[in-house]
Amino acid sequence: MANRVETDSFGPIDVASDVYWGAQTQRSLGNFKIGGERMPLPLIHALGVQKKAACRANMALGVMDAKLGAAIEQAATEVADGKLDDHFPLVIWQTGSGTQTNMNANEVISNRAIEILGGEIGSKKPVHPNDHVNMGQSSNDSFPTAMHIAAVTEIERRLLPALRVLHDGLEAKSREFADIIKIGRTHLQDATPMTLGQEFGGYTKQIEYGIDRVEGTLKRLRELAQGGTAVGTGLNAKIGFAEAFAAEVTKITGLNFITAPNKFEALAAHDALVECSGALNTVAVSCMKIANDIRMLGSGPRSGIGEISLPENEPGSSIMPGKVNPTQSEALTMVCAQVMGNNVAVTVAGSNGHFELNVFKPVIIANVLRSIRLLADAAISFTENCVVGIQANRDRLQKLMNDSLMLVTALNPHIGYDNAAKIAKKAHHEGTTLIEAGEALGLLTKEQFAQWVKPENMIGPSK
Amino acid sequence: MANRVETDSFGPIDVASDVYWGAQTQRSLGNFKIGGERMPLPLIHALGVQKKAACRANMALGVMDAKLGAAIEQAATEVADGKLDDHFPLVIWQTGSGTQTNMNANEVISNRAIEILGGEIGSKKPVHPNDHVNMGQSSNDSFPTAMHIAAVTEIERRLLPALRVLHDGLEAKSREFADIIKIGRTHLQDATPMTLGQEFGGYTKQIEYGIDRVEGTLKRLRELAQGGTAVGTGLNAKIGFAEAFAAEVTKITGLNFITAPNKFEALAAHDALVECSGALNTVAVSCMKIANDIRMLGSGPRSGIGEISLPENEPGSSIMPGKVNPTQSEALTMVCAQVMGNNVAVTVAGSNGHFELNVFKPVIIANVLRSIRLLADAAISFTENCVVGIQANRDRLQKLMNDSLMLVTALNPHIGYDNAAKIAKKAHHEGTTLIEAGEALGLLTKEQFAQWVKPENMIGPSK
Amino acid sequence: MANRVETDSFGPIDVASDVYWGAQTQRSLGNFKIGGERMPLPLIHALGVQKKAACRANMALGVMDAKLGAAIEQAATEVADGKLDDHFPLVIWQTGSGTQTNMNANEVISNRAIEILGGEIGSKKPVHPNDHVNMGQSSNDSFPTAMHIAAVTEIERRLLPALRVLHDGLEAKSREFADIIKIGRTHLQDATPMTLGQEFGGYTKQIEYGIDRVEGTLKRLRELAQGGTAVGTGLNAKIGFAEAFAAEVTKITGLNFITAPNKFEALAAHDALVECSGALNTVAVSCMKIANDIRMLGSGPRSGIGEISLPENEPGSSIMPGKVNPTQSEALTMVCAQVMGNNVAVTVAGSNGHFELNVFKPVIIANVLRSIRLLADAAISFTENCVVGIQANRDRLQKLMNDSLMLVTALNPHIGYDNAAKIAKKAHHEGTTLIEAGEALGLLTKEQFAQWVKPENMIGPSK
Amino acid sequence: MANRVETDSFGPIDVASDVYWGAQTQRSLGNFKIGGERMPLPLIHALGVQKKAACRANMALGVMDAKLGAAIEQAATEVADGKLDDHFPLVIWQTGSGTQTNMNANEVISNRAIEILGGEIGSKKPVHPNDHVNMGQSSNDSFPTAMHIAAVTEIERRLLPALRVLHDGLEAKSREFADIIKIGRTHLQDATPMTLGQEFGGYTKQIEYGIDRVEGTLKRLRELAQGGTAVGTGLNAKIGFAEAFAAEVTKITGLNFITAPNKFEALAAHDALVECSGALNTVAVSCMKIANDIRMLGSGPRSGIGEISLPENEPGSSIMPGKVNPTQSEALTMVCAQVMGNNVAVTVAGSNGHFELNVFKPVIIANVLRSIRLLADAAISFTENCVVGIQANRDRLQKLMNDSLMLVTALNPHIGYDNAAKIAKKAHHEGTTLIEAGEALGLLTKEQFAQWVKPENMIGPSK
Repeated sequence: MANRVETDSFGPIDVASDVYWGAQTQRSLGNFKIGGERMPLPLIHALGVQKKAACRANMALGVMDAKLGAAIEQAATEVADGKLDDHFPLVIWQTGSGTQTNMNANEVISNRAIEILGGEIGSKKPVHPNDHVNMGQSSNDSFPTAMHIAAVTEIERRLLPALRVLHDGLEAKSREFADIIKIGRTHLQDATPMTLGQEFGGYTKQIEYGIDRVEGTLKRLRELAQGGTAVGTGLNAKIGFAEAFAAEVTKITGLNFITAPNKFEALAAHDALVECSGALNTVAVSCMKIANDIRMLGSGPRSGIGEISLPENEPGSSIMPGKVNPTQSEALTMVCAQVMGNNVAVTVAGSNGHFELNVFKPVIIANVLRSIRLLADAAISFTENCVVGIQANRDRLQKLMNDSLMLVTALNPHIGYDNAAKIAKKAHHEGTTLIEAGEALGLLTKEQFAQWVKPENMIGPSK
Repeated sequence: MANRVETDSFGPIDVASDVYWGAQTQRSLGNFKIGGERMPLPLIHALGVQKKAACRANMALGVMDAKLGAAIEQAATEVADGKLDDHFPLVIWQTGSGTQTNMNANEVISNRAIEILGGEIGSKKPVHPNDHVNMGQSSNDSFPTAMHIAAVTEIERRLLPALRVLHDGLEAKSREFADIIKIGRTHLQDATPMTLGQEFGGYTKQIEYGIDRVEGTLKRLRELAQGGTAVGTGLNAKIGFAEAFAAEVTKITGLNFITAPNKFEALAAHDALVECSGALNTVAVSCMKIANDIRMLGSGPRSGIGEISLPENEPGSSIMPGKVNPTQSEALTMVCAQVMGNNVAVTVAGSNGHFELNVFKPVIIANVLRSIRLLADAAISFTENCVVGIQANRDRLQKLMNDSLMLVTALNPHIGYDNAAKIAKKAHHEGTTLIEAGEALGLLTKEQFAQWVKPENMIGPSK
Repeated sequence: MANRVETDSFGPIDVASDVYWGAQTQRSLGNFKIGGERMPLPLIHALGVQKKAACRANMALGVMDAKLGAAIEQAATEVADGKLDDHFPLVIWQTGSGTQTNMNANEVISNRAIEILGGEIGSKKPVHPNDHVNMGQSSNDSFPTAMHIAAVTEIERRLLPALRVLHDGLEAKSREFADIIKIGRTHLQDATPMTLGQEFGGYTKQIEYGIDRVEGTLKRLRELAQGGTAVGTGLNAKIGFAEAFAAEVTKITGLNFITAPNKFEALAAHDALVECSGALNTVAVSCMKIANDIRMLGSGPRSGIGEISLPENEPGSSIMPGKVNPTQSEALTMVCAQVMGNNVAVTVAGSNGHFELNVFKPVIIANVLRSIRLLADAAISFTENCVVGIQANRDRLQKLMNDSLMLVTALNPHIGYDNAAKIAKKAHHEGTTLIEAGEALGLLTKEQFAQWVKPENMIGPSK
Repeated sequence: MANRVETDSFGPIDVASDVYWGAQTQRSLGNFKIGGERMPLPLIHALGVQKKAACRANMALGVMDAKLGAAIEQAATEVADGKLDDHFPLVIWQTGSGTQTNMNANEVISNRAIEILGGEIGSKKPVHPNDHVNMGQSSNDSFPTAMHIAAVTEIERRLLPALRVLHDGLEAKSREFADIIKIGRTHLQDATPMTLGQEFGGYTKQIEYGIDRVEGTLKRLRELAQGGTAVGTGLNAKIGFAEAFAAEVTKITGLNFITAPNKFEALAAHDALVECSGALNTVAVSCMKIANDIRMLGSGPRSGIGEISLPENEPGSSIMPGKVNPTQSEALTMVCAQVMGNNVAVTVAGSNGHFELNVFKPVIIANVLRSIRLLADAAISFTENCVVGIQANRDRLQKLMNDSLMLVTALNPHIGYDNAAKIAKKAHHEGTTLIEAGEALGLLTKEQFAQWVKPENMIGPSK
């Protein structure tokens, strides 16, 4: 494979002739042989949007030549559309400003625009990666801008729809199970009755609130750093560029964005992404709880709780024939553990900014995007492959409820807590029913028990 | 010291005669000799509010005898006002539902109300801890209700005012320093100029947003679990109790509360507190950044950056005479590290609920209240003992700016990035000024440099 | 209450006349009104040991006057023995070097020694807090030395004995339950049989390894920073002081300590405590698992798994009469969540050192000591109030095992995995026994089943 | 592309004809469309080793047919050698036992062995994935065995060598800079002198200890779960299999392994990997500190500390010409933040095991392997691209030291701490030298100062 020579302020360097990237990308490949995980694609696509919007704003402000601008816009659109993904080879573990990936975008778009205009790739003419593609920009405002564009896009297009799928799946089950009375459990111990629908209604509410929480973080994620350039002052950008840029991004993406009211904050800190990660962490906490409950309710099939049956999707064991496991709960809870860990990585990274620039940008956005993707995918997988197929085992549910001693709670208003406790403890230690114990203690008659203890009257407040 | 005998469903137990608590509190003291940290006082006071509001609601609903109710209300008020703090000896590390602390409140209020009514302490007559003080309630809704009351109160009365103090202190400095041009720093390396006021303006914005973030979590913290009783159904509570209760709490505290629309979620999960902890974590991230910057800007006095001087509050060293240290930054950053750790404790605890009840309640609320208190106190200490006394070292600021090579950035629009880079690199490696290097390279004249590179024109976008 | 005047390099300051502390302690009280949690007592006592050992080493090196030394030694011993705890009022959230607490110790010991020698408290004569009590020391080596002394002492005297109590309690149960065959569970689903003793044997092993892990961190905790003085060089200390000091600490405590081979590492980093916290985190992970298992095995009493019964220590509910809960598991798992959070606080604090001194010392040692204390106390409470009283419910254990379909696994070597799977699936879906399904499928006879499937032969490898 | 039909106990399913995997792998692909990150290759290769060793042990025990065994061994070797990586398409987010990846290995090896033996792929004849490849094994012991093999291999072959490279690089600099006296800094403030070599010696020691810490975790990682089969009992494995297996793995890998003394612990918990992750976390803490120091020492070039110069590897800014940044520090510190987050993911996952099996296996091993890889790669990149090229700026170092007021500390033994403090404070506030201030205060003469304050005598303890 032939090479061509690319140059930057450090001098010439060989680059493979079939790639669009230039000198700085190539240097980064040599200097950062770490881990191998490439910068996430949603971030790359967002950089395409960012370059396109910057080009349009510069054209509107009259500082970008129309012909060059058209080529840049076309090339940037290809980046945004994922057509040039292979030309973004850099890993997450590079400079903490993401400068090398910003330059990767500048170089790819410059060379592609040169190609469109019939020029010589690598010549920087007529489209220079810094002077034209990066016009009025710095990595220090472009990269965080792309971070926010990517996060908002992934949340609005991927995560929120997925959480709504999970929400609706749980809500449908809550309605389906609305009439099934079961034993409630607190401290893992038998408690007073409720409906299986109420139990699933709690899960539904958790996800409803989770959606609210994630949406609540969009407000500050919609603020874009662009226009701050190197340190937040906006040096070398035109007055009006920041606002025009945000309007272009809104137009291109169809999602709302505004220019950040304070560019110094927008470069030096990534609190908005830490905040977002905190919301994702809360969603993970909710999902962990729900997935745990569902697998415990489905435990068995014969020697567990077994109140519900989960769909059987695959063989569960390489040694135990016929075994089926709650694998969707397992995948989802593993995702939750990862999201909790990611949140700590984002927290540490977010807290370590110095002066005018936080230089943990790639690790922050990589973790946030990964948490978004994992939660979204797992929410859909869990819904489709587990929630929708959950069956209630009505016989088992009824038996476990009827056996419970905690029906005794309904006696409190009639005979007082202390007497009710005596009945429950006697029945528990002697292995009898509440009625038997109550009669033996002379605290109630069979008829009173039947009148006072009706599970169907115990699932809500009383008149 | 004499003892009296208290009883519960486990039988009699000796209790010191000079305390109001009863049998279950005493058992907990014996069973949980762990750590020694008592349940936080804001939670105890909130339980006083909760018992008072429940009593009032029960009276309004006609199920609580007026005379007993009056005594209970008086006793609960004393708990809420902190007059009976010594009678709440239980530690955080007890039952995960907080039942023992709820019973501690029931017992103390019952005995105090009995005393008010002239009865015999420990007799449970005429005021029974369960049947009267806990009427229509369970620990499972009362304790989370107290958690939310405590968190909202501490946020509104303590944290938000403290953050506003910090915000205003930073904003005042931002205005004071508005005209001081200095070198910006990215990657800890010299960058383009800005004003010291802009730098402090970024910090100000971080705290402004932090206030917003914390306020954003109040919405769901204002939802109260009360009325869900044992498992969320509301068994043994009266219809209307939940709503009447929330209205009473609002009246008592002067803060807004509503009844939780879904009581199952409110007992089984503490996502609202995990969410809140995430916001506190984000505030900690912001404060860590600000406090780090301020101590680095103030490093020296002679061999550091030394752009600002921090107030000298105390001797800094037991061996180095005359040493003064940025101790307020140190206290604040240590607090931030603790808050980040607390957030993980809350996350783990929040994710481990089972079925109808999360039984990590005490550890969750203890960590959230501790984070609130620490951030609030540290914000005020940092403001009063550091921020307000910060002095700008104008000579040093000017010298460091003038020495900087990154003024070269202003040349980009005139001679292009690549030529500007040549000047900067030459000056850097030869230890000369930019003008000397520019002239030597034939890229500009002294006059052009003077015209193009004006720091005062580099602190904002251009026309 | 009368005051006296104390002085430091900042000038005079009023101090209450009934306390031994001096000017710098008093300033810290005014400057750090944060949180209220005092520096942990084990650290204060360790500072007493540190001052005593330093004094002895200085006497042995001939630089400390014998008469003054004797008084200092007596006063330091009182600090080490906890007799002067009330004179250490400073909070954790102070200077990050712990200088103020080191000066607190210097001041208290100086004033107490002056008192012993008949001088005037506050006069600094004849015993000066810096020149005599702190002779040859800096806070920068003294405080980390006290951190290590405190951690090693608390681990050896408190945590390891407590973990051994837990280990022995679990091991005793493992032996007691050695002959009870039960159903194993993987993925929360029924699996092949094992003994209840084997199950508890796994827990026992986890704690055995936990003890090893904690002991493994002692090696580097035994290294003492003393002798490094201000930045690690040892300026103003005598050659030989560091070694003599470590020998004295060993003598005083009866525990092994050595002087750190590299004092720069010992001041600038606290990796040894981060490592220790990681081991405590691992112990927390083990305990979380064990406590979770035990409460799930004991779930019920009628509608859960119910294979074991936990001791009934207290009433479990303020509304549900007769309810008993696995409260010891709850306290222990809450402790585990806290320890996991503390580990993150220690990690963040440990990673943020700058140059020659990590200034997150108080938050690091406070979290490590808290984790040690909580794990130790909870291990003993859990053992004494739960483990030792666990009863096996033999009937329930046998029933659940006999019902299980996973006994089918014993058929693999005889009829192959695929045929065995057919039997299990048929029995599961039709609600029959394995024998019935196997016969219906023509894959085995009742006699073959009886010969091949013997649970007592399924609890170990085969010949 | 043509398909073939594979079958499992769930029935037939289409699989592409050019892949070796079978029905269960195919089902997993359909059921777990989550995230896209495949199971890490070191784990896949370790499964190859595991299957090979199991086959050999079964042959040695006489239960595996020699001809089938030879084919299985050949196929397993190909997996171990990475020749069949493309045939392991499953993601991390699957069943938490890793069963699907274990079956993936069984299926690939079975089909490849069938191919070798001239049979029909997919026929399970003559080599059955469960009955032969998985003989005497369960996923429940095979997968954790592969986890340990992978972790030990990656630590011994990748991480430890890389940390030694970093250690040696730092140590070489420590020697190179041994004679350069500089100002020490505590609290970021000027402190007493030391040598630059001493400063780098501290970093060296941190990494030396980091290596020890990681090595310390190998002891328990060398224990293999194999032989425990489904729940730890060893059902369906032969007596002696576990020990023979461990010996084979040792032979195949050239690394030491033993059979776990307690198989229940080895399946139900992954404390050994949590412990390992804790050691990796500690290494990350060390590296964060070192990389931060180095970039701060190198800050500038003109308006920072500038005591050292870091290698210039690439252009640092897309807008600021000539800017060079400490990018290797940035990549390393981002890696450290990730490792700290990964540790929390592992902690949460490790703590959530239930009964006989921890079902967070894939997320645990994926995070541990990722932390190992990232730390190893970053250590080498940081050493080669930064540490080895660090230059000391001797003039700057000397100037900053000479300016420092903390040379005053050398006066303590001569004039006492209080007098020395007066000199330092006077010089600081009046901007004079220590000599001038000392003379003005009448506390010393110029000659005494010259005699007492010699930086070269301040870098160690005194006689």
